Amino acid sequence: MDKIKTVIAYDGSCFKGWQIQPGEKTVQDSLESAIEKIAGKKIKVHGSGRTDSGVHALGQVAHFDAPLGSKMSADDWHRALNVNLPPTIRVLSSETVKKDFHARFSAKSKTYKYVMDTSLILGPHKFLRTWHHPKKINISKLKEACSLYEGTHDFASFAVNRGDGKDIKTERTIFSVEVNSDQEDTLIMSFSGNGFLYKMVRLLVGAAVRVAEDKEDVDWIREMLQNPGKSKCQYCAKPDGLYLEKVVY
Amino acid sequence: MDKIKTVIAYDGSCFKGWQIQPGEKTVQDSLESAIEKIAGKKIKVHGSGRTDSGVHALGQVAHFDAPLGSKMSADDWHRALNVNLPPTIRVLSSETVKKDFHARFSAKSKTYKYVMDTSLILGPHKFLRTWHHPKKINISKLKEACSLYEGTHDFASFAVNRGDGKDIKTERTIFSVEVNSDQEDTLIMSFSGNGFLYKMVRLLVGAAVRVAEDKEDVDWIREMLQNPGKSKCQYCAKPDGLYLEKVVY
Repeated sequence: MDKIKTVIAYDGSCFKGWQIQPGEKTVQDSLESAIEKIAGKKIKVHGSGRTDSGVHALGQVAHFDAPLGSKMSADDWHRALNVNLPPTIRVLSSETVKKDFHARFSAKSKTYKYVMDTSLILGPHKFLRTWHHPKKINISKLKEACSLYEGTHDFASFAVNRGDGKDIKTERTIFSVEVNSDQEDTLIMSFSGNGFLYKMVRLLVGAAVRVAEDKEDVDWIREMLQNPGKSKCQYCAKPDGLYLEKVVY
Repeated sequence: MDKIKTVIAYDGSCFKGWQIQPGEKTVQDSLESAIEKIAGKKIKVHGSGRTDSGVHALGQVAHFDAPLGSKMSADDWHRALNVNLPPTIRVLSSETVKKDFHARFSAKSKTYKYVMDTSLILGPHKFLRTWHHPKKINISKLKEACSLYEGTHDFASFAVNRGDGKDIKTERTIFSVEVNSDQEDTLIMSFSGNGFLYKMVRLLVGAAVRVAEDKEDVDWIREMLQNPGKSKCQYCAKPDGLYLEKVVY
């Protein structure tokens, strides 16, 4: 039985997130439907993690077990999936991996990028693909705030409980946060880390932008990192600007 | 009575073209509805020209007459329109113009750009925003074909009759055609001219690409230009890749 690893891009504005939900169009559901059309049976797809409703992916990773006795190669799966998926989800590559590979549990690091547009009028082609936030942003303060996130911290102040009753560890390591402001009116923040909590990137962006707008002092972020969960960040940036860029194994 | 000139961008994939059609969502209809909400009465909007279903605009121009006695400035209209329009249509600028201005009849030149993607897999965020044509394209042949279009020609071979029974003159002047292939797998063709016939840019692109794929000789284009309307170009590139970039007065 072959285990197939796929790298997937999707336009998050077309889906109610990654995870299957009754009555909603999700990415996982679209993938499982495509596989069912090809294999003639239902097969579970495992993603590297859930992305929320409206969040995009440029390099999400998912695996599934090909049906017993299937003679399809990884390349065959690649082509067949793209034929059976909507154009808003594309399989970028596909390969056979070892039995112990798991899209979620084998991941070593993930990179998310967050795209923000500060121009007065958002071009119509950027709608739902960027956070439109037409405010004056102090770039050096944004960089200072983002640099505080680097390293190993308890990010309990930057997480939302999924409400599924599970107690989770909230320590994570962020390897790097890069702020790019080369393009006029466009700000890109890239977060690489060993893992991210539910809504964590959007809360980190929300807090850094509060500081960069002079609405909070940078010490406000320091305190949330030093006293995890004591006060919670209430500023969650829109899903529109968030892209899961890559997962490294 | 003020005459208001507006520059407008829209995501063509969200509309059945520019012109009002019963039961369809069009750009002109959306603009007139927004104006009606602001002015409390129906006012006709005149565009520089119709764009087809799925065709985009980065700098369409339209004018309308503000209601008699209105005290709204051009800036007031700019803001009020963007509040009342969907985010897939944006007014980029607005100004008061002289009474003899007409968005269509005063236009001196127009520029359209056509975007084509030749990569094997079209990124999901480019869907409906580019012509996905995963073929080997000979750039120098594409440039040679496009250069033939420059100058004053009878473009009857590159036009589709709208079927409204009107006899139209088919002579047009194309000032320049530029081919840009700087970005990997992306080709951009820019056409500037004094005017374009119905579906003309898409037919010019379709023909040039046939030549650049080695499916036709460049003389095939020469003959269509020299014997206008005798044989018609049958290759119409998709609307997805077409953008009305600017109109000059």
